[in-house]
Amino acid sequence: MNSNYKVTKFRSNKSSEIDDQISIEEPLEIILKYQNKDNWIKDTISITMRTPGDDEDLVTGFLFNERVIEKINYIKNIEFSGKPVGQYKLHNKVIVTINNSENVDINKIKRNFLTNSSCGVCGKTSLESLEIIKKDKIIKSIPKIHHEIIMKSPSMLRKNQSEFSKTGGIHASGLFNTSGEIIALKEDVGRHNALDKLIGFILKKKLLDNSSQFLTCSGRLNFDLVQKALMANIGVLIGVGAPTSLAIDLANKFDMTLVGFVKEDSFNIYSNKERIIIKT
Amino acid sequence: MNSNYKVTKFRSNKSSEIDDQISIEEPLEIILKYQNKDNWIKDTISITMRTPGDDEDLVTGFLFNERVIEKINYIKNIEFSGKPVGQYKLHNKVIVTINNSENVDINKIKRNFLTNSSCGVCGKTSLESLEIIKKDKIIKSIPKIHHEIIMKSPSMLRKNQSEFSKTGGIHASGLFNTSGEIIALKEDVGRHNALDKLIGFILKKKLLDNSSQFLTCSGRLNFDLVQKALMANIGVLIGVGAPTSLAIDLANKFDMTLVGFVKEDSFNIYSNKERIIIKT
Repeated sequence: MNSNYKVTKFRSNKSSEIDDQISIEEPLEIILKYQNKDNWIKDTISITMRTPGDDEDLVTGFLFNERVIEKINYIKNIEFSGKPVGQYKLHNKVIVTINNSENVDINKIKRNFLTNSSCGVCGKTSLESLEIIKKDKIIKSIPKIHHEIIMKSPSMLRKNQSEFSKTGGIHASGLFNTSGEIIALKEDVGRHNALDKLIGFILKKKLLDNSSQFLTCSGRLNFDLVQKALMANIGVLIGVGAPTSLAIDLANKFDMTLVGFVKEDSFNIYSNKERIIIKT
Repeated sequence: MNSNYKVTKFRSNKSSEIDDQISIEEPLEIILKYQNKDNWIKDTISITMRTPGDDEDLVTGFLFNERVIEKINYIKNIEFSGKPVGQYKLHNKVIVTINNSENVDINKIKRNFLTNSSCGVCGKTSLESLEIIKKDKIIKSIPKIHHEIIMKSPSMLRKNQSEFSKTGGIHASGLFNTSGEIIALKEDVGRHNALDKLIGFILKKKLLDNSSQFLTCSGRLNFDLVQKALMANIGVLIGVGAPTSLAIDLANKFDMTLVGFVKEDSFNIYSNKERIIIKT
């Protein structure tokens, strides 16, 4: 979702006024509705800055990735609250009713969402709890991928993005199969939101098959993206930009193949390189 | 701060194994120590994923930008806690003792840090409280900047970054004067952390003069970066990437000049263009 803005462009020593398309960024307040004995209670558990669209996927992926819910069928209902607001007339409040209230410790959830300014890891209250991935969550079945498929995936991602060509300022996450076809793609100004949206969508549509699929994300690869991919049990993560140390460490620890700096004719493999088939 | 990792590079149809430098990403737990009647209390208020180094600046800028403290001399002491941990032997817990405990509402702070997954706006508990900038906080004195200074600032930033040429994966924020000289520069894997570090540093060193300075940041321009610049009362924000709608809206609302997509021979102005002097 984007909007036109007046822009002064300076090119080749000349300035001109044009209308340019800008990615929308708007807040989304996520309110959890759960049962406590005989009462239904509503609590705000997160406010995220997102690009509007696919909000239900975003919420689903977020709740799953952060393990507020263990299964997506714990979500009984997703409804938008109040009147449309702001210049884009958007619903910026969403109420998620869950049907596993007996498993919800709202104080723990709130404590877990104690925040950070970088969003690498949102909501861990101690260093020890950074790795929310269970130790036993090792990916069982990981595909091998031909190097040409790797190098093509970022341009495939860009070609299939509805927003990037317009604004040049939006991130994307795409699920691909080993033939290089796109299974699903989501966009957002926030890298993490794009991946939350994608995972919410593929879980809902039951599109996930970790034995024949991989993820490609725009931008850099940080801890958070690796963690989200692992939570969804995806074993190969491809990125256009640089990885961080912790991203590599986590990929190594949980047997993920991490590939960065992917261009049309080059890439770097940071872990488990045996899964990338290089035939030249 | 970076570290060497084994990397398989694929270039010109050949793969090779090399040691490559990777930006470090490690958690930092920020613990606030404050007085409640006769007792000193410690509370974790944030965990941020940061590139180690300049941690005191990061903490100072973060507490100031998020208005946990109104003035940096409210900070009585910053000390690292516990033994160095992890493979890089780092202090990842910092205790900040403040001397304005009477002004601290710890429940409000904790409530405010209710998080989000995109880090656009960390810790606002309702949509209405997104704009933490006071209405009366209008920047009084904003410089005019020559277009050539604008176009040179990103390459100046890159040349003066200690980490970027090594890892290709780290963000930077720099404070410049209208002659195009760098006053201060900070780096981090998180854009927001880089700006928190910079603002913490320039506040501490009393380097800020909003009548003759501007900010240049790597990457895209979102709400959060604009908000942080405004909190420090800086009126011109330059970015290498695309702005979001909310970034432009906020810049317009608070009389900031926002310039994006800056390359060596081009840029876009998104608000208050009269401050950019275009002479060709």
